[in-house]
Parts: sequence; C-alpha cells; structure tokens
Amino acid sequence: MAFTATRRVDFPMVDLARIVYYPRFWDLAHRFYEESWEFSCGMHYNEILEQKRIAFPLVHSTADFHHPLAYGDTVECTITVPRVGNTSISWHYEFRNQDGVLCWTADQVVVCTDMDAVKQKISVPDWMREGLAKLAPE
Amino acid sequence: MAFTATRRVDFPMVDLARIVYYPRFWDLAHRFYEESWEFSCGMHYNEILEQKRIAFPLVHSTADFHHPLAYGDTVECTITVPRVGNTSISWHYEFRNQDGVLCWTADQVVVCTDMDAVKQKISVPDWMREGLAKLAPE
Amino acid sequence: MAFTATRRVDFPMVDLARIVYYPRFWDLAHRFYEESWEFSCGMHYNEILEQKRIAFPLVHSTADFHHPLAYGDTVECTITVPRVGNTSISWHYEFRNQDGVLCWTADQVVVCTDMDAVKQKISVPDWMREGLAKLAPE
Amino acid sequence: MAFTATRRVDFPMVDLARIVYYPRFWDLAHRFYEESWEFSCGMHYNEILEQKRIAFPLVHSTADFHHPLAYGDTVECTITVPRVGNTSISWHYEFRNQDGVLCWTADQVVVCTDMDAVKQKISVPDWMREGLAKLAPE
Repeated sequence: MAFTATRRVDFPMVDLARIVYYPRFWDLAHRFYEESWEFSCGMHYNEILEQKRIAFPLVHSTADFHHPLAYGDTVECTITVPRVGNTSISWHYEFRNQDGVLCWTADQVVVCTDMDAVKQKISVPDWMREGLAKLAPE
Repeated sequence: MAFTATRRVDFPMVDLARIVYYPRFWDLAHRFYEESWEFSCGMHYNEILEQKRIAFPLVHSTADFHHPLAYGDTVECTITVPRVGNTSISWHYEFRNQDGVLCWTADQVVVCTDMDAVKQKISVPDWMREGLAKLAPE
Repeated sequence: MAFTATRRVDFPMVDLARIVYYPRFWDLAHRFYEESWEFSCGMHYNEILEQKRIAFPLVHSTADFHHPLAYGDTVECTITVPRVGNTSISWHYEFRNQDGVLCWTADQVVVCTDMDAVKQKISVPDWMREGLAKLAPE
Repeated sequence: MAFTATRRVDFPMVDLARIVYYPRFWDLAHRFYEESWEFSCGMHYNEILEQKRIAFPLVHSTADFHHPLAYGDTVECTITVPRVGNTSISWHYEFRNQDGVLCWTADQVVVCTDMDAVKQKISVPDWMREGLAKLAPE
C-alpha cells in the first residue's frame, strides 16, 4: 500500500522559466518522506531522529523527469518501499500533477545509521521493518 | 579538460546532523554548472537563457553519495561533459572536500529546448558544441 | 478578519541548532501569503501574476523574533492587511506554534507594480482593494 | 572598517520575475555574515558554534529594498557592527550591485546565547568584542 500526500507548488519552488527548479524535486520528496513516517510507523520523523537516534544518509539516487511542474500546479506524491535490506531501505517516489500526469519518478537507497556515529551502519530495527511493510508495493 | 571551482559549505546548506542536506548537492551542482558556461562558451549562463533563448530541462539523474560534506568544509567541484548528442548533453559531476576525499558523483542528462516552447527539442548549436568540447573527459 | 493557515515545520527549514533558520521565516510568510489570495480575492496568486500582470516588490520589512520554531513543531500563521494605500499594501504576519506561543511578528510594505515594467507603480485595482478589505484587522 | 565580500547571483536565488526572491536577501546576508567572522575574529563561524558553543538568535530585523538584484548580477555586501551591548550585537548590511547601485540595507540585532541552552543569554566575550571592534563604522 502506498503513502500518498499532496502539496501546492509554492512560488519559491519555481525558477525564471516558471517551473519547479529541478533540485527542489528531491527537496519536495524529502518533505513527503517525512510525512510518511506517521503513516508507516506512527511517529513524527523527529522522534526517529531525536529519540531513536537513527539517521538515514542517502547513498544512491536515480531520477527521471517526465513532465514539468509549474507554478499554480498541485503535486501528488506516492511513496512505496520496494525493499528493506539488513541495513538499507529502498524508497520509490512518483510525482503527479493535478491532472494525474506523471512528472517525476525516483528510486533512492538509504542506509540506517547511528545518529551519534553517522558512519556506523545499524540493522533496520524490527518495529521499523514492520511499519515500512505497510509501504510495500502491491 | 575539466572545469573546476570551489565553494564554501554555507550554514543554510547543512541540516541538524551538521552535514549538507542531500537535495542541496544537486543545487550546488547547478551553481557550479552555471559558472562552467563562462569557461566553456565564454558567456554567462544568463545570456544563454535570455539572449539565446535556450533552456535545458533535466531528464535523467543518477547520483552516488560517498562521503558527507560538513559545516566548515570547502567543496571542490569537477565538471566534464562526456557526451553531446543531437539534442541532449550529458554532464558528469564530482565533489571533493578540502582533503581531496570524493564525496559525490553524479551523471545528468539534459535536453536542449527552445525557452519559449520548453517542450520543443532543438539541436545543440555548433557554437555550444565547440565550447562544450573543452569539457570532454580526457 | 484574518486569514489563518497551518504548516508543518519541515526538516529542510531547520538548521544545525534544530530550529528554523531565520531567513526561512520570511520564506514561510510568503508561502502563507500566496495561500491568502484565494481567501481574499478568490484566485490563485499565479493568476494575479500571470493573467493580471501585477507584481508586488517588497519595499520595507520589520520583524521581531519572540520564540524559536523547532523541528516537529507546527506553525500557524495569521495574516491581516492593516492598510491599503494608493499604490502600496501593508501586510501584518503573526506566527504561533502548536501551543499558541507567539514566535514571530512582521510588518511588510509592498508596492503594486506592472509585471512587465516592474519599476512602474500602479494603483491598487478596485477588485483587489475590495478583496483585501476582508483582511482588515478588527 | 567594514567587511566587504562579493558573490554571484545564482540561478536558484531568482524567481519567475528574474529577480532575487526577497527572503533570499536575508539568506545571502547570513552567508556573508559567516564569512565576516574570519575577518573580524580570525576563525570560521563553525568554530564559534561548535567549539565556543555560542549561538546568536536574531531578535529584530529591519530591512529596506531599494533596487532589485537580477540574474546575472553580482552582489557586493558591506557589513559593519554599529553596537556591541552586554549580550546583544547590532549588525548593519548593505548590498550593492556590480554598478555600485544600493539594493538593500538591513539592521539586525542578535543576542549572544549558550548553544546548549539557547534561551540563556550570555555576555559577549572579550575576544569577540575585540574582534568585532574591527567592524565598527567609521
């Protein structure tokens, strides 16, 4: 089941060509990703960083741009988690505009690390693995 | 021959873990990319957008994160252009920190379009092809 | 009557001290301001820029920071328009966190200009004056 | 004696009207401010945050926008410190474009606090007071 959420395209996201400046697609993806933790694991992302002391550095990203997002558009993001490894998590993002047109797809791999020793990989904890199972693609 | 430039890691680039927030790697890459046009084609990027009326939407990006960039670091970016197709250009980015440690590599493909009709692909003009030849990897 | 809206504090808004980096208060204010146009004048801000060809450069800003906004917080923004002059509009912003604590107040004056000749001041049109009257402080 | 530094106006700073989006004036000011610490106190701002454990929350800001900064421009920033109080520091910023045209002036007051207890004001240390004296207006 996918997590889905919607946001307005805000003025500061677009460039002089009136379309979302491309690095902001990843920024938008992160903002949706933050929201998804309440859906998957029942807690604000801040709790994971701050209380659980877990950080998720990105190690790999692949993205395809299919259609621009313009000022005035609304973006719908769909997030799934195709794979949870021992220490890594794979995220899949799809952005569509208000007409259902596919604009952006991305696949990102993060590793699970100790916030207080960011280079120290840790196993994805069981409670997280269970929560993220909700985001498995059908 | 590669284009090389250096920038400070500014405070607003880093997140609460004191390292550059990952979407800002693409943003940084774009700022270096802008600078590279003066080296390759002898004109400010603004001239290409505004006078030449050419836009370069990104269609594909692949990136690998090897090492974090932290507040206080300096980032050195190396840019090459491995391939200029009929309507597309491939850019290769490498970020290193002040100790020469490789932090980020990315490959991005843009298409050359008419700024006033962003979906209209155009051939890479000859003057641009010649300029970008300076950035061919050795 | 004030316009009121709420947004999450997103991860990229906060700095290494885990609180919203201060320039982003103005950025947040602008995102709320955009939303307020649908409430006051019944149209997306894009329509004002794009169809009505009106731009609103900021000429003056005064802001006071009363309490930090931290990661995990939700910000509620209240917007009023204390004064509409012949060519200028005064906006008043208040940010509160999820506990009702006042975090930020700002007063900003913009001038109404022709989008195609940004230095050319124009009179605030009647339809806009009527719409903004909804935001007059009580 | 003022601290002076120059930066390019980068593509992501400008909006669809091709001029710097106004919240980014404060962001730019902060990036210049960071650089000024090496000039005034002989250390990277990171050292002050990280080793000295001092933070400087902004409490008040007043800014005037005199002339837009456009894509292609270069901005020169001049920073002075008109006043160092017991726990507060007043900063004055001026932005000019490559033609010497005054674009932006701002006055900002920060308080000196303990990074590990951000609400705890502390006296401006003597070494900092001495360093900042270099930035006193003439």
